[in-house]
This record gives sequence, C-alpha cells and structure tokens, in this order.
Amino acid sequence: MTAHTLIERLAAAVGPSGLVTDPRDLEPYLVDWRGVYRGAAPAVARPANTSEVEAVVKICAETCTPLVPQGGNTGMCGASVPDATGRQVVLSLARMGRVLELDALNNTISVEAGCVLANIQQAALEADRLFPLALGAEGSCQIGGNLSTNAGGVNVLRYGNTRDLVLGLEVVLPDGRVWNGMRSLRKDNTGYDLKHLFVGAEGTLGVITAAVLKLFPRPRTTATAWAAVPSPEAALALLALIREQCGERISAFEILSRNCLDLVLRHIPGARDPLSRSHGWYVLADLADTREGATLRAELEQALEAGLEHHLVSDVAIAASQSQAQALWRLRETIPEAARAEPGMLYRHDISVAVSRVPTFIAEARQALEARFPGTDIICFGHLGDGNLHYNAFVPGRNRSDAAAREASDVTEVVYDIVQRFRGSFSAEHGIGRAKLAEMRRYKSEVEIGLMRGVKQALDPQGIMNPGKVL
Amino acid sequence: MTAHTLIERLAAAVGPSGLVTDPRDLEPYLVDWRGVYRGAAPAVARPANTSEVEAVVKICAETCTPLVPQGGNTGMCGASVPDATGRQVVLSLARMGRVLELDALNNTISVEAGCVLANIQQAALEADRLFPLALGAEGSCQIGGNLSTNAGGVNVLRYGNTRDLVLGLEVVLPDGRVWNGMRSLRKDNTGYDLKHLFVGAEGTLGVITAAVLKLFPRPRTTATAWAAVPSPEAALALLALIREQCGERISAFEILSRNCLDLVLRHIPGARDPLSRSHGWYVLADLADTREGATLRAELEQALEAGLEHHLVSDVAIAASQSQAQALWRLRETIPEAARAEPGMLYRHDISVAVSRVPTFIAEARQALEARFPGTDIICFGHLGDGNLHYNAFVPGRNRSDAAAREASDVTEVVYDIVQRFRGSFSAEHGIGRAKLAEMRRYKSEVEIGLMRGVKQALDPQGIMNPGKVL
Repeated sequence: MTAHTLIERLAAAVGPSGLVTDPRDLEPYLVDWRGVYRGAAPAVARPANTSEVEAVVKICAETCTPLVPQGGNTGMCGASVPDATGRQVVLSLARMGRVLELDALNNTISVEAGCVLANIQQAALEADRLFPLALGAEGSCQIGGNLSTNAGGVNVLRYGNTRDLVLGLEVVLPDGRVWNGMRSLRKDNTGYDLKHLFVGAEGTLGVITAAVLKLFPRPRTTATAWAAVPSPEAALALLALIREQCGERISAFEILSRNCLDLVLRHIPGARDPLSRSHGWYVLADLADTREGATLRAELEQALEAGLEHHLVSDVAIAASQSQAQALWRLRETIPEAARAEPGMLYRHDISVAVSRVPTFIAEARQALEARFPGTDIICFGHLGDGNLHYNAFVPGRNRSDAAAREASDVTEVVYDIVQRFRGSFSAEHGIGRAKLAEMRRYKSEVEIGLMRGVKQALDPQGIMNPGKVL
Repeated sequence: MTAHTLIERLAAAVGPSGLVTDPRDLEPYLVDWRGVYRGAAPAVARPANTSEVEAVVKICAETCTPLVPQGGNTGMCGASVPDATGRQVVLSLARMGRVLELDALNNTISVEAGCVLANIQQAALEADRLFPLALGAEGSCQIGGNLSTNAGGVNVLRYGNTRDLVLGLEVVLPDGRVWNGMRSLRKDNTGYDLKHLFVGAEGTLGVITAAVLKLFPRPRTTATAWAAVPSPEAALALLALIREQCGERISAFEILSRNCLDLVLRHIPGARDPLSRSHGWYVLADLADTREGATLRAELEQALEAGLEHHLVSDVAIAASQSQAQALWRLRETIPEAARAEPGMLYRHDISVAVSRVPTFIAEARQALEARFPGTDIICFGHLGDGNLHYNAFVPGRNRSDAAAREASDVTEVVYDIVQRFRGSFSAEHGIGRAKLAEMRRYKSEVEIGLMRGVKQALDPQGIMNPGKVL
C-alpha cells in the first residue's frame, strides 16, 4: 500500500479533523518536551473514542504500519516519539480526555487514556477523595502515559506506583481487537492478571484507551519538616524512627545533598535556605492523616526531637503554614530546573536500590566516580523512602553542547555497574523508551529478555506496536 | 521413556529421600484437604533447593512429563492436585521452607516458596514488623501457594491481595531455566513486569521457588466492633462513614446475614450472640493504628454513634479486650465450619462486585434464586470492604450425598449470571484450578481467553506446567 492510501484510510477512520498531516502541525508530536528525541511521521491520528482507535490499529495491522502511542509526551526516555524512518504513525490519545465515571462508594474513577493527570486529581478532590499520583508534569501528562510508563512521583512511599493504583484497563491490542478489562473490583482471581502486562509496557503491547483507578480518603491534616542530617546513614535511621513513631502517616521522605540546595539557591529566584547554617545533607518529610484534627505537627516534632537526641538530626525547620510547606517543597522540586541552568553536562541516573542500602550505594558510587573522573560534582537527591535516587553528576571538562560528551556512556556505566552489583534498577521510575536500550542489553539476564520477547511475540507478532522501544 | 527410567532420573535429581513413590506415602499429595479433588501420580518430587527444582523441571521438559506444583495443598479449587491419568508428577515445595533474609530497614523478607505463612508472620513480628497476609489456613498453607493463587484473606481492605505484597520472585520456567527476579526494590521500571504473570497463575507458567515480600509497621493499637445494621445498604453507608472519620485506620469490614450467625450459634460450641436481640445483618469492623497510644476505641465509638444517629446502626458491641475481639472474630471465622455441619447441600460462590453495588447484588441474586428455587436459604457473608461476598445457598431438597446435586451447576449459574451482569468476578479470591473451568468458558471473553492462551503458549509451549488448570 502506498503512503497515500494509508493516509486516506486513516482519514476515513478518524475523520479529517482527527488526522494531522501538515508538517507544521506535526512538529510537536515528533519531538519530546526536552528536545532530546526527534523523529518523523507521515501522520498523527487523533481518534476521538475507542472505536476510532480500533479502526486506526486495524489499518496499521493490515498494512504492517508501525504505530507510536502518545500521551502528553512528557516522558524522559523518548518512548512516545517516532523514529527517524518516517514510517511510524503517531497515535495521539489527546482527544480522549474524559472522566467517564466516579464511584465514591467504591472509591474508583474511570477515565479515558488521554485524561490529563491534574484533571483526575481535581475530579477526585471534588468528590472528597484523593487520587494520589502526583508528579512534576501533572498539568500536561496523560493517564495513559502514566500507566504505560508506570509513573512514580512523590507519593509512592504511601500509595505505590501507578501500577498499584489501577483496577481495570481497556486496551486495543496490536491486531485491532479490544480487550475490555474495565473492572472496578478489589479482588478478582480469574486467570492471568493481564492489566499488569500493559502497565509499564510503554505502548509496545497495545494501546491503553481507558482505565479504572483507585481513589483514597482525602488527607485532612498534613505536616512538613525540613531537617539537616549529618549523613545518608542518619537520614535512613531517621526514616525508621519516624516510621516507628508515626507509622503509615508518613507520605513522603526525600533526601538531598547540600550542593542540590546550593544549585537551587543560585538559580531559583526567591529560594532561601530554611536553616541558618550549611549542612551536608537534608531530608524533607511529609506526614498526612485522613482524620480531621489529627495532631500531626506535634507527632512530627516529637519524632524529630528524638532524632536530635540521637544525633540523627542537626537542625530542623517545621512548616508553620501551608505556604511554608510549599516553599520547602519548592526547594526540592526545582532541583532539576536549577541543574539545567548550570552550564556543565549533567549525567542523569534514575536508579533504585534497597532502601537499607542507599547510604552504602551513595558512598561507593561517589568513590568510583571520583576515582575515574576527579572533581566530579554529584547532585544526589530523591525518594529515600522508596530507595530511588536521582544520582546525577557534573563531570569536569564535559560540556553539554559537545555531542560526544552528551552521548558518552562512560559516566553512566560507572554508576550502573554499581547499581547492578547492588541488585538495583537502572531505571526506577522513568522507564526504558529508546534511552536505555543499551542498558537493557548490558544488565538484563538472557532469561529475562527472553521472557519479555516471548510475551511481545505472543501479543504483537508483527511487531507494529512502538517498535524500537523497551526491547 | 518408560515410567521406570523417569523415576530413576527424578530420584537421581532429588536424591532417594526427595522422591515419594510408595502408594501409601503418595496418598496425601493426591487429594485436596476437603477431599473434593483426587488424582494419581507416579511420584512426588520433593526438591530441597532451587537447583533440584531446576533438575526436576528439566527432566519433565525433556520427557514431556506434566508437572503439578504443590504447596500446602489448602486451595479451594483443586489447582494443586494431579489429574486421574497417573502421568502427572507432583512437585512439592514442602522441603523449601526457609526464611532467607529479613531486612528491617528495607521492610522486606525473602523466603523460599515452601515457607509456611504463619512462619513468615512470626518472623516479621520478631523484627517488630507486620506481614499482613492472614487467612484460615495460615498454619499450613505455603507462601508459594499463596502467591500462585494470589490469596486474599481478612486484611485486603488495608494491605491488598498477595499480589500487592510481593516485590520479587524466583521462578523455574517450564524449560527448566531459572528466572532470578529476586529484587527487593520499591521502584523498578525496566521492561515488562514479569512477576505479576506468575502471581495468580496457579503454577501453569512456572514454579515459584522464592519471593521477596513487603513488610509493614506493626499495628500497636486495635479496636473491634460488632454492629447490627438494618440492611446491606446501611452497612455500606456505615463503611463510608467510618472511612470518612477514621481513614485508612480501618483494616477489616465484614458483613454477615443473621442466618450465618444462627448457624454458628447452632453448631459452634461456646458461641453466643453479642447482642440481646436478633437483627437482619451485622458488620464486624477492625481499626488498627501503628502509633502507640492511639485513641482508636474512642474514634470507633464516635463513628458508630454517628451511625446510630443516622439509623445506619441498630445496636453495637465494642470489644473491651483482646479476648472479646477474638470472640467476635470467631463468630465470623467459624461460619464455613458451621455451614459444613448443616446437613443440606451448600452451593458456594466466592464472588466480587464493585463495593458500591453489593447491596443491589445481594437483593437481585436473592430474588433470582428464590424465583427459581423457592425456599432457598442464603448464607451471605464476606469482605464488604473489598466487595467480596461468600454468597452461598442451601437449596431445599438438594442433598450433599447426592452426586447429581453436588455437580448441578443450575444454582451457581443463576448467581454467576447476575455477577456477570454486574461486571463482577466469579472467583474473587479462590482462583480457578479445575473447579471453575466451565465458568472461564462461559463468562470470559474470547479476546481475554486468547490473550491468556497466548501467554501460556509463549512460556510453556509443551504445556507441561499444571495442565488442565486455569485454561
């Protein structure tokens, strides 16, 4: 089939307003938000409902046309961007953005895949519920992308990853048939759990078109503390102490090194150090309780006082208001922005290890990097409560405008080799996309890759679903 | 290959003490604990470690010998019992019962598949942690079986199903290779999530040999209430009210009809009605808090008083001591035993629907059963908080000693057809095994069965892993 007839068929399936072919209009679909990955496509199909997705996928299946599902295009690994061949059709879910149903008594919300995350959060709030997935891109990312990448974010410690928030899915399979798994059940043991195959598959096994998600009681009281700690070991011991005293009220526990704060103070207008003196490490901890009138601030103070007594804490600032809490969180959340404002080349690593091994990992990785690249500046921050660190490094003499430096994998290999020794993950929350294919080959066992390929082959024998990603 | 050489090879793989062939010793492996499913086997292999499991599976793969993995053999659907052909080798994990490692700071425990559930609970308690999976068979069921059936139990409302409690797995695949997925990470987005394929697959995709499980802060205070409610609708509204006031402190919310209590009072020695008058429905609710000195009892009283005010509660008994709480729970937990002591034929249905639809389901199913089988006595109890009911029925004139009555599916079809209309599950926590193959055919879509068969074919092309189960 010629490209011309393909486009005619796609236009017939989604209507002329559902198909983008003009090069100027195509542009935003062909490049990721950071401008790192760029590709080409003959067209972007923007179906308005599941039947139209079915029709598009059927045309692609019949014509062996590769398809790239795309949500908000806010990913970090390029999974939603087509390759350079110009053969891959982009399937944008952006027009499928409706909340389908909210069942407050069942604590579930059903949404189309193109629903923007913030809209789901808002719909939940309006029903006096919480949808806990929260991350930087929430104003533009779509739930279909969150599901396909099993997004993490700041509430994983308490509520889990996106995978843990889903009860049901609707998926258009690579042959164009629909799997209707839109169940809103807390318990269902009738055969293999298919939804977990599609969550985190980055669109390589099918197109998620809708989902049933879990809601939770809305927290009514919160407390936030910024604590200076002498070391990552102390931070870890403080986490155990707060858990011991406050149990599952703890909803976030972040760690950052002093140079992260320095970056923020240097580049982010209005940022100020919450403490009068400089310290090596900080933690940012949130407690939340669903009960009105809970005494969270007192509980947090008590736990931190115990931390001071045991020399786990050097100094502390507890937010006295919501706006103070927001200011503390802003120091944590603007680290990536501040790092982008630095001139050097930042090698980024989204890694995880067992929570108990984070301090040893930090020490060993630092030692290895400094031995190999003397003068390296390590920008280490992340979700200590999940064992997930953004362990990033500025290497002297490497410039981000230098393509060779950008593509060099010598720095990341030093870090990932240690991650591997710790039985950790070289992609804790960002996924694989096209960014980490080399790591898949280097670090995954043959058995594991073989299993994944077997599943891929079983579901997508033609290999048309987002080829060149993940595997 | 003759049976003789197969047995010689298996004996060489697991040692003579690891192979059972004497018919008298085989007996307990060939029948389930209720005596419902019975089969035959040339031998039971009892490997002592993963390498021996590998060796056994390799021999079976080479000789196309079907294998039935077996844990504590406490399942409800016959998944762990061989068929009648006498060809299927039973692979018992009973000798692989060790706790491998407990990491209190990471809140994880690593165990072999044959580890008895109660031993895991105990190891967690000794480290001041909770492993929340709890169910009737916990003294003899093994975690490998819990994982393979995705067991539910009484703490699902707060902690999820077994699936939600697992971070890593080790699995011997149908070709005898080992997949080492023993990760203890809270976040890992490196390709398809393979562990969720094996959890709930009832041994049809491979043999789970070890697992890394999540631990939680141990609850320090609990409160238990037994409340009479006028209707299932009122029970549901009470659940919402308690959730509103007490948030995630609620850890169990059970419902039972009056005739469940009548059965228990009739058959269970020492059982007594906690309330002075008879009521149509009851709920049993537990709150738990990880914080020492939490005011749970007062909170629960306050919520129930609000319930009384709003006519959601007719009468209430709050446990004043641990032993009173246990006595209340005994009323709930002995319902199955009491039902077995009744002479009639009990048609059992382990179903789930959306929590919000439980009252409507109860009413419609009752109406349909009474229309078709007048005089039916419905024994309805279960985990209202999970939408999971044990919706069982004594049908007049049906006797359990009558094989035709035992095998008749006319009653269950009435119930499951309504479940299907509610988009519910015909097996909420017990799985499929050989018991519910007909329901898989009747209620699952062709697309869904096709996906499952595709996965099965990809992982076990010879079909040697627990054939005749699930699919």
